[in-house]
Amino acid sequence: MALLQDFAAIVGAENALTGDDVAPWSKDWTGKYCAQPGVVLRPASTHEVSRIMALANAERQSITPVSGHTGLVGGTYAPGGVMLSLDRMNTIHDINAQGRTAVVDAGVVLSSLHGAADAEDLIFPLTFGAKGSAMIGGVMSTNAGGSNVLRYGNTRDLVLGLEAVLADGRVVDLMSSLRKDNSGLNLRQLLIGSEGTLGVITKAVLKLHPKPRAYATAMVAVATLYDALELLNRVQDATGGSVEAFEYMPRHYIDVHMARVSGAREPFDAPHDINILVEVATTTQTDITDTLQQIMANMMEQGAILDAVVAQNEAQRGAMWERREAAAELTFWRQPIVDTDVAVPLDKVPEFLDRASARIAEADSGAEPFYIAHLGDGNIHYGVYPSRDDDALKDRIVELIEDTVQDLGGSFSAEHGVGLSKLNTMRRRKDPVALDMMRKIKTVLDPNGILNPGKLIPD
Amino acid sequence: MALLQDFAAIVGAENALTGDDVAPWSKDWTGKYCAQPGVVLRPASTHEVSRIMALANAERQSITPVSGHTGLVGGTYAPGGVMLSLDRMNTIHDINAQGRTAVVDAGVVLSSLHGAADAEDLIFPLTFGAKGSAMIGGVMSTNAGGSNVLRYGNTRDLVLGLEAVLADGRVVDLMSSLRKDNSGLNLRQLLIGSEGTLGVITKAVLKLHPKPRAYATAMVAVATLYDALELLNRVQDATGGSVEAFEYMPRHYIDVHMARVSGAREPFDAPHDINILVEVATTTQTDITDTLQQIMANMMEQGAILDAVVAQNEAQRGAMWERREAAAELTFWRQPIVDTDVAVPLDKVPEFLDRASARIAEADSGAEPFYIAHLGDGNIHYGVYPSRDDDALKDRIVELIEDTVQDLGGSFSAEHGVGLSKLNTMRRRKDPVALDMMRKIKTVLDPNGILNPGKLIPD
Ligand SMILES: Cc1cc2nc3c(=O)[nH]c(=O)nc-3n(C[C@H](O)[C@H](O)[C@H](O)COP(=O)(O)OP(=O)(O)OC[C@H]3O[C@@H](n4cnc5c(N)ncnc54)[C@H](O)[C@@H]3O)c2cc1C
Ligand SMILES: Cc1cc2nc3c(=O)[nH]c(=O)nc-3n(C[C@H](O)[C@H](O)[C@H](O)COP(=O)(O)OP(=O)(O)OC[C@H]3O[C@@H](n4cnc5c(N)ncnc54)[C@H](O)[C@@H]3O)c2cc1C
Repeated sequence: MALLQDFAAIVGAENALTGDDVAPWSKDWTGKYCAQPGVVLRPASTHEVSRIMALANAERQSITPVSGHTGLVGGTYAPGGVMLSLDRMNTIHDINAQGRTAVVDAGVVLSSLHGAADAEDLIFPLTFGAKGSAMIGGVMSTNAGGSNVLRYGNTRDLVLGLEAVLADGRVVDLMSSLRKDNSGLNLRQLLIGSEGTLGVITKAVLKLHPKPRAYATAMVAVATLYDALELLNRVQDATGGSVEAFEYMPRHYIDVHMARVSGAREPFDAPHDINILVEVATTTQTDITDTLQQIMANMMEQGAILDAVVAQNEAQRGAMWERREAAAELTFWRQPIVDTDVAVPLDKVPEFLDRASARIAEADSGAEPFYIAHLGDGNIHYGVYPSRDDDALKDRIVELIEDTVQDLGGSFSAEHGVGLSKLNTMRRRKDPVALDMMRKIKTVLDPNGILNPGKLIPD
Repeated sequence: MALLQDFAAIVGAENALTGDDVAPWSKDWTGKYCAQPGVVLRPASTHEVSRIMALANAERQSITPVSGHTGLVGGTYAPGGVMLSLDRMNTIHDINAQGRTAVVDAGVVLSSLHGAADAEDLIFPLTFGAKGSAMIGGVMSTNAGGSNVLRYGNTRDLVLGLEAVLADGRVVDLMSSLRKDNSGLNLRQLLIGSEGTLGVITKAVLKLHPKPRAYATAMVAVATLYDALELLNRVQDATGGSVEAFEYMPRHYIDVHMARVSGAREPFDAPHDINILVEVATTTQTDITDTLQQIMANMMEQGAILDAVVAQNEAQRGAMWERREAAAELTFWRQPIVDTDVAVPLDKVPEFLDRASARIAEADSGAEPFYIAHLGDGNIHYGVYPSRDDDALKDRIVELIEDTVQDLGGSFSAEHGVGLSKLNTMRRRKDPVALDMMRKIKTVLDPNGILNPGKLIPD
């Protein structure tokens, strides 16, 4: 590639990788979108990103931004293409304890930010299994959700300001740290969740929250999913909405976890079908474990709760979380898989699961569902291992899941984003006027279509 | 106007108003943008809005949407033009107590929604002085803030889904009620705060919150603004962030209030300079008044608090709020006024006030500042009565305020929006790349420039 030298002149030859050096960027978490890029550019500053984009735009060279490369929808797939990696731009510029804000580069790893906030007795709440690799630019570009959205919101609720480089290399400065800022169209929220199609995010101002004084974390086996929702409501009411996580792991999940993770165990003495991880936290109450235990004791008397274990220390809490955070590994180790990421209104989750599995069984009697849910958000990572590797069958299964979601007023794409894997679904299910608006915005902000082409917005 | 008959055929002759009938739409809250529209159309359905827009687009006829007509920035100014009023589309379709959502038409008045939510033991938190007239479509289009943003966020944080009619009459359906929905570019947040320039909002799904069980409301006189911020921090810490409002009324505000509102009184036995309205609320604690009183007692011993009065009943609480909510009336009764709506980081508020008044005094020694602040958000409605009605002087004062805001990392437009009154400021202060992006988005979504032209985005 003739352009390579020009790119190398911008980032330095040692940061314009080719051949074997791109190996770390050639794998894919889901196993579905493995591809070797032609070049990986590792700029060190916004200025370098800007020069890369200006050159790429002039030369009509497509660019695929990449942060931690942990996305689950093929958003960084760029066979033979040019990847722009943010990993060298990893400075935490400021943790403002008084103002509860952090100013960070896009390449800061999520767990590094967790550490820096913790040192100031604050938290950056966003968390999920890939926190040790995912970067701020990546979580912003996918508007990642995770396990405590019910308490703190999605990524877009945690971002006060940002800086981005547009397709033509211009830098847009939206670095506000204010809670109120009505100065024109909200470009910040447009860029968040745009999966690298509108701009390269280079910097952000993030909201931090006070660190809870006390956590209460428990595994609970309930009789039915309705009992689980009852538990959620009761704990929310008793604690003023302080539930941080409410995660559902069905029997098959626990089984696969024990089979594949060494040292993994049953959460309870006896195996149960509906296993809930609940975590509550407050900055004021110290008797929060008592509150949780009382509610659970009442529900146990009523037969709604079958068993419960409260974490007695950080190690036990950690083990509960490790089980949950193994989800992506446990889902994708087996192929082929039809994976979806849907959300339905909370009280519709049981119905969704019943209807989806019935429909899928009709289409493919040998299919095996495999799912796990951020139950507190009605967000289900609903996967299916079909009985055979047949594209038509797989698409049929996706359609059946989509139908079920649509019947129940849900979303076909809750938190992982669209990337490549949900393009068909977007085409079929998203409001056509909305799709047209997206295409128009994309065209006018990236007229040469060089930013992560073919992702997010179906043709 | 030849088009009038065609419009009348869509909405019915009785809903296509002209002449004297448009009087209610000819006034302006600020007194600065009074103008009589040529026609006011009052459609009854999304379908009628769609037909109006399709016709207007074909005929290149500008349309200015209007809801409660309480905006403070001239956003509905349309001398001789066509206004599209949402006031007949005022159905509350659903209050879902379980899911904590409301589905409403854009013309629902804010206080009607308050009432409907209250009947289900829920709240729609957004509130401000114009709540009896402002409508959901209007508050969404301006992303209104108000007095409890520090607890519940701005309007954009309270909207889950919406429906809008685009410039060409097409309807975009984004009516989701889900907390997680990553299906493409975020058009919802783009339309919220777009002040009628990108689409006519016709319907919304809104978030409701549980009604607090207990409120504690007090007027507090503090020695310095730093003591006020200390009080805010202490109460937030002690209640897990349950402060709903933290409003600052300076001496001159209290004086004007007493002079102009019959029955108005001093908040305390003796007059004080720094008067704070603080309101705390929880869904769990019942001893919240004790908590507040204890903190205040401690700070009184230290000399930081000079006096404090806790509301003993709803009537006393109401009187405290009435004083605060008279702000817009008390600001705009006297003309000419230079009014701004700025935000700075919380701890910079005292510095902002000192620096701004010093700079203004230099430019116009006879100028009188008049301000009030949502102190908990660092949001100051900073007005100035200049010594003479001179456009150059007024613009100079605005620039001095902008300079001060910029020095302190603030926003020149916090919550009221841009409309007409802040176009110059947008042109001068907003990042030029951001302005260019806004213009491009406007052009591609409204190619004929018929939706509220001349507002929000400077040429
Ligand atoms: C084990 C595991 C668990 C997970 N759990 C969750 C979960 O609970 N909730 C959830 O929401 N997600 C989850 N995910 C997926 C999650 O969305 C991603 O991990 C994360 O948000 C992506 O961050 P990243 O830095 O790896 O981005 P990447 O994978 O590098 O990129 C993701 C997308 O963003 C674009 N992009 C990256 N950086 C930038 C930038 N700076 N500017 C513009 N565009 C950019 C890319 O082109 C791509 O389209 C999980 C993933 C794994 C592997
Ligand atoms: C006494 C008083 C107190 C106030 N206090 C506050 C406060 O504390 N915080 C705050 O943020 N604001 C405050 N405001 C201003 C506030 O922004 C507006 O009152 C409110 O948000 C506008 O609602 P409205 O229905 O009156 O809209 P309008 O004034 O009718 O319209 C406002 C803008 O939105 C557009 N618009 C209206 N409806 C639609 C629609 N359906 N679709 C598309 N565009 C539309 C209009 O074209 C215009 O640009 C106050 C105003 C008053 C008079």
